[in-house]
Amino acid sequence: MNRTPQLTTLCYIEKDDCYLMLHRVKKQNDINKDKYIGIGGHFEYGESPDECLIREAKEETGLTLCDYRARGIITFVYGKDVVEYMHLYTATGFEGKLTDCDEGELIWIKKDEVSDLDIWEGDKIFFDLLNKDAEFFSLKLVYDKDDRLSKAVLNGKEYERENDETL
Amino acid sequence: MNRTPQLTTLCYIEKDDCYLMLHRVKKQNDINKDKYIGIGGHFEYGESPDECLIREAKEETGLTLCDYRARGIITFVYGKDVVEYMHLYTATGFEGKLTDCDEGELIWIKKDEVSDLDIWEGDKIFFDLLNKDAEFFSLKLVYDKDDRLSKAVLNGKEYERENDETL
Repeated sequence: MNRTPQLTTLCYIEKDDCYLMLHRVKKQNDINKDKYIGIGGHFEYGESPDECLIREAKEETGLTLCDYRARGIITFVYGKDVVEYMHLYTATGFEGKLTDCDEGELIWIKKDEVSDLDIWEGDKIFFDLLNKDAEFFSLKLVYDKDDRLSKAVLNGKEYERENDETL
Repeated sequence: MNRTPQLTTLCYIEKDDCYLMLHRVKKQNDINKDKYIGIGGHFEYGESPDECLIREAKEETGLTLCDYRARGIITFVYGKDVVEYMHLYTATGFEGKLTDCDEGELIWIKKDEVSDLDIWEGDKIFFDLLNKDAEFFSLKLVYDKDDRLSKAVLNGKEYERENDETL
């Protein structure tokens, strides 16, 4: 069992009412296999979250971010042996030309169509918060091994999924 | 060399224009020995930042936090073998009675007198941001082994200490 939490960034670059989504179809043994997620990746030793963000954005998209915003921290728990702290960002300013990504296909998707894609169940919660321009939030998402969201806690309170039509 | 980053919370509880400061005089081999810092501590496995915050506040002060706010993330680098991600909070609402703390003495200090205490040099930067009600920020503080602040980076830009009279 790996008891060392993982530290990552997750970023949704915005343009023309779209998010840049990464369709994870290229890597084997990928916890995100076939899902659509944002860009980002693991911290290198000693990096600040925003240093990681800028490096990963450049590596995965070819773009240099010049305007970005920290939106929240996601505590992602998957089964008993994965704990990951995902520093969630959106970015509205960037320079350069979009390149291919080794980890999947990059596609601009209209914000209101993102929920129709194969995304993690809990991601719908934070997309809703992003779209509502919520203040910096803490969201804990606990998944079973079959990718089923068993618990969601937003800012210390259990998230009421029964009343949420997006789930 | 320990290459596993540490994950912690750091919280300044507020009351009557004071911060609750912890004077770290009780523990030996303490990187904070004799300094004044906020309360907080290390994440337990699987905790979200706010779960850690509430547990540590209770353990160290006896208080139950009921109103708190994430203010920033501090990447604390000390020499070559310490990297710590400190999730910085302030709290204005709490219940219960202040108790003794195993790690030091708890003292309410007027906000405008905090900089006169023996605090880490870089902490003056984030106290200034807290007092200005800055948006959620990322601050990287790099220290030499003799506790000298060698570099400070705020939201991706080197912090101009020359123009800052508080340092």
